[in-house]
Amino acid sequence: MRIETVEQVQDLTRGAVLLGTGGGGDPYIGELLLRQELREGRCAEVIHPEDLADDALVVCVAGIGAPTVLIEHLQAKDVCQALLRTLEKHLGRSVDAIIPAEVGGLNSVIPLALGAQIGLPVVNADGMGRAFPHIDMVTYSVYGCPAYPMVLANELGDCVIIEGATSDRKVEDIARAVTGALGAMTYGALYPMSGRDVKDKAIHGSISYSLSIGESIRQARQHSADPVAALLDTLHRPDLQRHARLLFDGKVLDVKRETRDGWHFAKVEMTGLRNPDVHFTIELQNEYLRALHNEKTVCIVPDLIAALDRETAEPLTGERLKYGQRLKIIGVSADPIMRRDECLEVFGPKAFGFKEPFAPLETL
Amino acid sequence: MRIETVEQVQDLTRGAVLLGTGGGGDPYIGELLLRQELREGRCAEVIHPEDLADDALVVCVAGIGAPTVLIEHLQAKDVCQALLRTLEKHLGRSVDAIIPAEVGGLNSVIPLALGAQIGLPVVNADGMGRAFPHIDMVTYSVYGCPAYPMVLANELGDCVIIEGATSDRKVEDIARAVTGALGAMTYGALYPMSGRDVKDKAIHGSISYSLSIGESIRQARQHSADPVAALLDTLHRPDLQRHARLLFDGKVLDVKRETRDGWHFAKVEMTGLRNPDVHFTIELQNEYLRALHNEKTVCIVPDLIAALDRETAEPLTGERLKYGQRLKIIGVSADPIMRRDECLEVFGPKAFGFKEPFAPLETL
Repeated sequence: MRIETVEQVQDLTRGAVLLGTGGGGDPYIGELLLRQELREGRCAEVIHPEDLADDALVVCVAGIGAPTVLIEHLQAKDVCQALLRTLEKHLGRSVDAIIPAEVGGLNSVIPLALGAQIGLPVVNADGMGRAFPHIDMVTYSVYGCPAYPMVLANELGDCVIIEGATSDRKVEDIARAVTGALGAMTYGALYPMSGRDVKDKAIHGSISYSLSIGESIRQARQHSADPVAALLDTLHRPDLQRHARLLFDGKVLDVKRETRDGWHFAKVEMTGLRNPDVHFTIELQNEYLRALHNEKTVCIVPDLIAALDRETAEPLTGERLKYGQRLKIIGVSADPIMRRDECLEVFGPKAFGFKEPFAPLETL
Repeated sequence: MRIETVEQVQDLTRGAVLLGTGGGGDPYIGELLLRQELREGRCAEVIHPEDLADDALVVCVAGIGAPTVLIEHLQAKDVCQALLRTLEKHLGRSVDAIIPAEVGGLNSVIPLALGAQIGLPVVNADGMGRAFPHIDMVTYSVYGCPAYPMVLANELGDCVIIEGATSDRKVEDIARAVTGALGAMTYGALYPMSGRDVKDKAIHGSISYSLSIGESIRQARQHSADPVAALLDTLHRPDLQRHARLLFDGKVLDVKRETRDGWHFAKVEMTGLRNPDVHFTIELQNEYLRALHNEKTVCIVPDLIAALDRETAEPLTGERLKYGQRLKIIGVSADPIMRRDECLEVFGPKAFGFKEPFAPLETL
């Protein structure tokens, strides 16, 4: 598959916002970078995990830190290219393909822009099936691929290699600290892994999943159909153990925000359009983590929550929610691999401070 | 020369406290590490810069961060050995000798303990001729040897390589941030340089200088001579452009301390033993930076200030100064290389926020 048209890029970006579940960084800059590649006659080649040789070297490339600063760092692709070269020199071999760390948010688009620029294929897979705030919250880590050696750099030429660490969480801590010293935003090449690892440990089909989300919204709009209904049709695939449903249809009453310890915490209060007695709440810590209908949990991390404009199905990031918006909130089940016990340990409700255990969306 | 007796180690440590000019971290732990080597039958071999081949690979090894935490990190030598191995692998060649970054404080002794343990010679030279708080405040950096590639590690196995940086000050910023993430204290291998670099850019004879300080104090005590006078005799060598003199003889009236932005700031107020009308002040930011006699500067950084017990000439670090102590304060001129304009830019008065320019001790 190739990403070669502006329409594809827009579909993909819209899918990435939805899969970002409120966070992940707005992929808009990534979209600009990728569109620039198309204008210059290059395109992103997307390959299936099964196309990789077992001993291929595959690596994640991602932006780390505050996406708000990204707009000041437009040499993103040059930095990422330098990262790969440094990692290749350190490992003594060439990188064969790039893989996204997350399919939600900005970091789903950066690997494609980089791949287009330097002619490396991008694997149709990722490690989250959504966005998460920590680089250790990926299936790669859960199933034993270390995040290191990780190369981190900014556009000025400062460059750090995390050579070894006691855990991937420690890699995260170090990367965060280095990012602070290097100006709030860096790029990283991390999780060097084999083609075999990708086949066994990644979430497959993420990029095409993201594309299909944007496609279904676009096509419904073109045919004057209900785009939210069309989207749910696309996402609800019980045959693939993927469920999706409308959690709420209402308006935003209040958004309480707090920025604390480097996180964006918020509580979104909603009520019915005509029935003011129903209460709906979304709690977020960078990403939407839990939705409650009249105080009862109806969707919880790692299952996905998306806030959509109720007319256009445009997915909205957490920082764009505000009083008076009319939204449809949908829940989408995470990839089955993400719901396994060992994964829930790392990015289930407990990892975000919730006391209640995970329960699948379709049972709530 | 070999460091092979406990007496030598004690002389060296006492010299290191004096050359630490109030800071640099108490070398006591370093002394313990080195004495352990002697007990186990090993000794530290100290070589002259001229003994190095021009293309020898020489590297600094130093503790970074809060020396107060060091006592919890007693595997120092194992960590340092791993550091060197990582650097060797990264550079693709063996290290031929170790060189201290600073001859004052803890970091003057650690290279000797490591050298004894792994059988690598230590160069009789350093980059400060004293202690300074930043890793970029060395003659190596002033004369164009970059601090990177620098390897940083803790005793748990976390390991980071600073592969490139826009300046050695940026290396310092990154190393500080990583040290914070790795538990307040790390060890670093940095300033990989050639034998030629050491000959041209280092301060020569630092270790023997430090030894001679401890020796002269010890011998004066053994012979019931005045140890401060003996010390000044040793240090005052106008033929080598090194000057030393008694700046003040008095008692401590007050020590105002402030810990701010990770620094230990203090102002030590003294007066005469019999004449309460004279005022003497020492200002410190980790190290003693400026001494004033009745408001007139009598010694300023990079020239060295040392606070000595007035009876025993025991040199005291800044955190040990307190009300009522009877002290002799001496000034010692920095190595001539340290007083050049390009060096004063990096670690002269201006670098520490003083408005007055540097003036040599012997002219004040």
